[in-house]
Amino acid sequence: MERRPHVVIIGGGFGGLSAARALARAPVNVTLLDRRNHHLFQPLLYQVATAALNPSDIAYPIRGVLATQKNARVLLANALAIDVEARHVVLDDGALDYDFLVVATGATHSYFGKDWAKIAPGLKSIEDALEIRRRVFLAYEAAERESDPVAQREWLTFAVVGGGPTGVELAGALGEIGLHTLAHDFRSIDPTQVRVVLFEGQDRVLGTYPPKLGAAAKASLEKRQVDVRLQTLVTAIDDRGVTVKCDGKEERIGTRTVLWAAGVQASPLAVSLGAPRDRAGRVEVHPDLSIPGHPEVFVIGDLAKMLNPDGTQVPGVAQGALQGGKHVAKLIIAEVRGKAVRPRPAFRYHDKGNMATIGRASAVVATKRVAIHGLVAWLMWWAVHVMFLVGFRNRVFVMLSWAWSWLTFTRGARLITGDIGSLPAVRTIGADGTVLLPVTASTVSLDAVSSAPRS
Amino acid sequence: MERRPHVVIIGGGFGGLSAARALARAPVNVTLLDRRNHHLFQPLLYQVATAALNPSDIAYPIRGVLATQKNARVLLANALAIDVEARHVVLDDGALDYDFLVVATGATHSYFGKDWAKIAPGLKSIEDALEIRRRVFLAYEAAERESDPVAQREWLTFAVVGGGPTGVELAGALGEIGLHTLAHDFRSIDPTQVRVVLFEGQDRVLGTYPPKLGAAAKASLEKRQVDVRLQTLVTAIDDRGVTVKCDGKEERIGTRTVLWAAGVQASPLAVSLGAPRDRAGRVEVHPDLSIPGHPEVFVIGDLAKMLNPDGTQVPGVAQGALQGGKHVAKLIIAEVRGKAVRPRPAFRYHDKGNMATIGRASAVVATKRVAIHGLVAWLMWWAVHVMFLVGFRNRVFVMLSWAWSWLTFTRGARLITGDIGSLPAVRTIGADGTVLLPVTASTVSLDAVSSAPRS
Repeated sequence: MERRPHVVIIGGGFGGLSAARALARAPVNVTLLDRRNHHLFQPLLYQVATAALNPSDIAYPIRGVLATQKNARVLLANALAIDVEARHVVLDDGALDYDFLVVATGATHSYFGKDWAKIAPGLKSIEDALEIRRRVFLAYEAAERESDPVAQREWLTFAVVGGGPTGVELAGALGEIGLHTLAHDFRSIDPTQVRVVLFEGQDRVLGTYPPKLGAAAKASLEKRQVDVRLQTLVTAIDDRGVTVKCDGKEERIGTRTVLWAAGVQASPLAVSLGAPRDRAGRVEVHPDLSIPGHPEVFVIGDLAKMLNPDGTQVPGVAQGALQGGKHVAKLIIAEVRGKAVRPRPAFRYHDKGNMATIGRASAVVATKRVAIHGLVAWLMWWAVHVMFLVGFRNRVFVMLSWAWSWLTFTRGARLITGDIGSLPAVRTIGADGTVLLPVTASTVSLDAVSSAPRS
Repeated sequence: MERRPHVVIIGGGFGGLSAARALARAPVNVTLLDRRNHHLFQPLLYQVATAALNPSDIAYPIRGVLATQKNARVLLANALAIDVEARHVVLDDGALDYDFLVVATGATHSYFGKDWAKIAPGLKSIEDALEIRRRVFLAYEAAERESDPVAQREWLTFAVVGGGPTGVELAGALGEIGLHTLAHDFRSIDPTQVRVVLFEGQDRVLGTYPPKLGAAAKASLEKRQVDVRLQTLVTAIDDRGVTVKCDGKEERIGTRTVLWAAGVQASPLAVSLGAPRDRAGRVEVHPDLSIPGHPEVFVIGDLAKMLNPDGTQVPGVAQGALQGGKHVAKLIIAEVRGKAVRPRPAFRYHDKGNMATIGRASAVVATKRVAIHGLVAWLMWWAVHVMFLVGFRNRVFVMLSWAWSWLTFTRGARLITGDIGSLPAVRTIGADGTVLLPVTASTVSLDAVSSAPRS
C-alpha cells in the first residue's frame, strides 16, 4: 500500500478545522490535535458569559465535525513543542511525525506583564465564560445581601477593560442584564441601577471600524448604562476597584467585577518553531503562510502575523483564520499531487466585513462599501452569526434562544455553577424586622421591602 | 403596620418551592434560602450527565420562579443549623428568625460508610452531572489513545451501582451513547462495542415497581448492551475496576468509570432539629409533617420520613415533596388566619404513578391501575416530564432537544469541560505508520485505520 503523506494540524479552531475539511478529498492522512474535544464559535462566547446561550449552543465536538471524513482522525492531546528539524510534534506523552504541519493554536489573553489574570478574567474558553457568568450573577446576589451602601454600589458596578468588539459586546450585555433580565428578581436592590464602565485607551471604541460606527456604538452603549471612558488606561486593579489614568489624572472606580478584553498574546507553542515573531508573539510567516526554511510548516489564524500582498495586515478574526486554513490546504494538495508552482501563490485575505453587536436591536456592520448601525445592522449580525455556526442543531437552538430572549427580555442560562465563594454577611433579620445579631449596623425590614411598590 | 408572620423555607427543590408558591396569597413574609441560585429538575439530571440536555434546560433560577411573588424573597445562603428553641436558622454569616420553618433540604449520596465518593460519583447536582459527563466522554478519548487491549476494554466498560430509576436510566443512556451517539466518531476503537454493567443487590431492577416492569426494563437494558447483574453486591472499587459478590462468589470487573446510584442519606441539617430520625437520617415527622414539640417546624420531601395515614411510606420522589409542600402551606395559612383545627389534618400522599425511561422508545410506567412498558409508556414519560418542568422556555427547549436527538441519534451537549486529566500515553505514530518513540509496544498504522471500511 502506498504511503499517504501525513498532515498534522494543531488546533481545532476556525483555522485548523477549515484546513482539515479542505483536505477531505486529498490523498493524505490528517491528524487534528486539540486540547479540547470541542470547536468553539468564539464570536458568540460573550453570550455564554452573559447567560444568553448555553455552552453547547456554540461548541461542537471536533469528532462530530470530522466523523465522516475518512482520512481524518482527531486526537485529544496537548502539544508541547514542535521539532521542525526532526519533523515531529512533541506531546506530553509521545510524539507525532508529520510530512506537513499546520499550526493554528490561536491566542490567549495578554495582561501586558501584569498579574491581573485572576482578578480580571478574560474570555477565550467555555471555562472562562462560565467563570465570568458566575461572577456577574454572584455580584447581584452579593449586592442583595450587602448592607453597606458603598459596597453595594461596588457590587452593582462592572468594569470592562478594552473597547474592541469583545469589550463592547460584553459591556452592552452587562447593561441589559441589569436593565431587563434581573429587573424584578431582587428585593433589597434595584438591578436597573447597574453601572458598567468600559475603559479604552484609544480615542474611540471599535478602533478597527470606521469612526462613525465607533461613535454610534458609544451612544448605543450609553443607553444601556455603560459609562464609556476613552483615552483611559488602567493602572491598577484590586478586589475593591480599578485605578485609571486619563489626561494625566488618576481616578479610582469602586467595583467588585472586572472583565478583561484588552490584549491578546499568541499561543506559546510558536516559540519552538524558531521562526521570527512580533511583539505579540505572532509568527511572521512568508506570503504563502509557511515559515522561513520550512515550506512544509504553515502557521495560520491568530498565531500568525499574516500580511496581504499589499502589506496590510490580516485582522485577527474568524474569517482570516478560515481563509488561511483553506489556502494552506490548497498548497498541500498541490504539493502531494506534484502540481505545485514556485513561488507558491501568496495568501490574500478577502475582507467580507466586520460586525459587532451592542444589544437588543443594536449592532454595527462595516464592509468595504457600507458602514451601518442600528436595527438593520443587528439583523445582518444575527443572520451571519447563525449561518456560520457549526452544526445544524446549534444553528436552530441559537436562533430559538435569541428569539426567546428577544421576546421575553430574559436570559435562559443564568445558572451559577461552581463555588459560590464568600458573599457579604447576611443582614440578620428578626421576624419582626429588627436586627438580631450585630452582623452589620444597618438592616432592612422585610415588611418594608416586601410591601414596597416596585416598578 | 401590622407585623406579618415570617415563614422561612430552607431548600429550593420541589418541596420548598411548592410551599413558597402555595403561600403566595397568604398574609406572611416568605424567605426561601438555598445554597444554589437554581431549582433543579432532578428527574432529568441523568440527561445532562449523558449529554442529551444542557444544564440550563433543567435548572431554573429560583429568583425567576418567585420574581413576581411580592411576599417572597430569595437568599443565596448556606444554612448550618437550626435553633428550634430560639426559633432561628443559623447561617454561615448570620441568622434568620422565623415564626414558621419549612425544612426541605433533601438528600445526598450515601456510600454506606465507604470511601468511594471520589472514585464513583453520584448524581445530585449540576456539578455532579457535568463531572459524570466529563468522565464518560473522556473514557472514549482514552480508549482511542490506548494501545493495551485490556486497558482499552476497561475504558469502554462502564459500571453503574444501583438498579433504581436513576441507575436504570443512566445505564440505558450509557449504552446508547456507544451504540448511536459516538458510533462513527473514532478511528482506533469501535464505540458500539461498549459494555455497561449494572449492579443491583435485589432480585430485580426498579424494585419499587411491579415485577413485570422490572423484567421489561431488564430486557430493554440488555438490548442496549447493559449487562444487568442482580443479587450482586459491590465489595470494592478501585481505579481499574469493581469487585462484586454474587451467590457467595467474588468476581472482578475491569472498568475505569464507576457511577453511583445506590444509597441516599438525608441532608445533615436534620441533626440540629433534635427530632427522632431513621437509619437513613430522615426526620420522623408527625402525620401533619411537623416535628415533635414544635408545631411551627415542618420537614418535607426526601429529608422527612413521611407516612400515610395507613402507615405506608411516602416514596422519595418529586410528587411526594411537591404535595408535602402544599400541605404545610395550607396548615400555615390556617394558623395565621386563626382557622386552624386540632388535631391538624394529616398529610395523605396521592400516588400519581411512577415512571422511568430506559432509552429510545422505551420506558416503564406504573400507576395504581396500569403497569405498561414500551413506546406508549415512553410517550407518557415524555409528556409528563415536559409538563412538570419549571419555566416555559425550558419546556420548549427540552422538547426540541429530545425531538432532535430522537431524529438524529445524536446528543447535542457532549462537551468535555474542566480538566482533561491524564489520558493514556499516545501511541507514537510515525508518518509511515511505524512506532517512533517506545511509549508503548503496540501501535496502529494510520493508513490501516483510515482506509479500513467502517460500518
